[in-house]
Amino acid sequence: MPHLTHIKVRGYHLDIYQHVNNARYLEFLEEARWAYLEDCGDVEYFTSRHLAWVIVNININYRSAATNGQQLQIATQFSKIGSKSAVIHQVVSVAGSDTVVADADITFVCLDQRTGRAVAIDGELLERLSKHLTD
Amino acid sequence: MPHLTHIKVRGYHLDIYQHVNNARYLEFLEEARWAYLEDCGDVEYFTSRHLAWVIVNININYRSAATNGQQLQIATQFSKIGSKSAVIHQVVSVAGSDTVVADADITFVCLDQRTGRAVAIDGELLERLSKHLTD
Amino acid sequence: MPHLTHIKVRGYHLDIYQHVNNARYLEFLEEARWAYLEDCGDVEYFTSRHLAWVIVNININYRSAATNGQQLQIATQFSKIGSKSAVIHQVVSVAGSDTVVADADITFVCLDQRTGRAVAIDGELLERLSKHLTD
Amino acid sequence: MPHLTHIKVRGYHLDIYQHVNNARYLEFLEEARWAYLEDCGDVEYFTSRHLAWVIVNININYRSAATNGQQLQIATQFSKIGSKSAVIHQVVSVAGSDTVVADADITFVCLDQRTGRAVAIDGELLERLSKHLTD
Repeated sequence: MPHLTHIKVRGYHLDIYQHVNNARYLEFLEEARWAYLEDCGDVEYFTSRHLAWVIVNININYRSAATNGQQLQIATQFSKIGSKSAVIHQVVSVAGSDTVVADADITFVCLDQRTGRAVAIDGELLERLSKHLTD
Repeated sequence: MPHLTHIKVRGYHLDIYQHVNNARYLEFLEEARWAYLEDCGDVEYFTSRHLAWVIVNININYRSAATNGQQLQIATQFSKIGSKSAVIHQVVSVAGSDTVVADADITFVCLDQRTGRAVAIDGELLERLSKHLTD
Repeated sequence: MPHLTHIKVRGYHLDIYQHVNNARYLEFLEEARWAYLEDCGDVEYFTSRHLAWVIVNININYRSAATNGQQLQIATQFSKIGSKSAVIHQVVSVAGSDTVVADADITFVCLDQRTGRAVAIDGELLERLSKHLTD
Repeated sequence: MPHLTHIKVRGYHLDIYQHVNNARYLEFLEEARWAYLEDCGDVEYFTSRHLAWVIVNININYRSAATNGQQLQIATQFSKIGSKSAVIHQVVSVAGSDTVVADADITFVCLDQRTGRAVAIDGELLERLSKHLTD
């Protein structure tokens, strides 16, 4: 089951087209990822090991426009754990409906903040991340 | 030759990692696209025909971190004109260097604001957009 | 009793000083005002009468820094109804503590969107707004 | 003479009212302050002494709405140097016109980043800041 976050569209999220601006969605997605990582205890885990998630790619589809007052639901789940990177899949939809507003794949690496280098995803780290695929 | 826009990284562009936040790049890219469209006269052309560009996909690679005080250069050019959508390719680099910070493909459709529907890219519109590929 | 909204500080809210950026607080305050107006039914009331709230002044004190992971509470209440403008007082604090992070007075006028002019706050409008002072 | 910065209003700066959003102006003002401090060499001066400017109050008047495509001019100058704080006055206007869009007083203290405390504005620091009043 994906993790769910809800965000209500407000007047300041809109742009000249009266729709949520394309850049704002990335803040919505980041909000949902922090909430997810917090809820599953990963913020502490990664911080204590000096590991930071560094995004290397975002591929986002804008499928329908979100407008003022709409309640959005953001579903967040891991979709792939590779040897060097992992992918989180996120779907923004209008809460209580089948309307998909946007969906995105977020690819990231785990950076060791002491060396400034990405670490291999194996051993304990692989075990930790892999749990996200099945939870 | 791609169109060039310059943006200096400021303290408010950074996030907890002291790098430009992933969402902020989409504003940088949008800034560069508006500047491009303005410089080539397309803002007027599209506005007068009630056509809006609606983004359907952004695929962005984050290749290196941008930090406070860096001067960024954003190169913007069309890379593909299809029958229903077009693609703009944008590269963010550190000005005066070979360091690529991010690159992205922005896919958009042309929406007729009177009908709310995407229009086919043919005839005069195709001619107009195609000029961007060779300019 | 003031209306309460809660916002958790995330990594993308911070700036080069690792504190919530000064501009971001205005979004937090706007979020809280929309939530307040929605909860008391005023969004519908004003929209149906073509009235928009237009901010003419914000006076905000930044009293202590908010950092990543803190849960902020935003208390929102009307503090003054004048003949032409009204004032909303908002206090941002760390939830569950006495630590005030910021407080602000937001002065606004009611704009008739059909004429583009501010309207006098009297009659039914005065009655409507005055309820906020005592609720 | 105040320092001048120019910013063009883009579609992503607007909100539901099709005007530049109230929070966005604070980013415009911050952009102008960084540009000012950079141009006069103060960024280096303060950084090398581990001093950070910390904003304690912003008092901003929104005088007229800025809309898409407008070229804004931001005039920045010091207006007061006190013993513990200083004030920068900033005026946003439509370039080439007398139309004031917003004006603001930004009050800040100088924080010693090693102690986390505001320092007294005297001696060399007073001399440095005072130059801004007369330049």
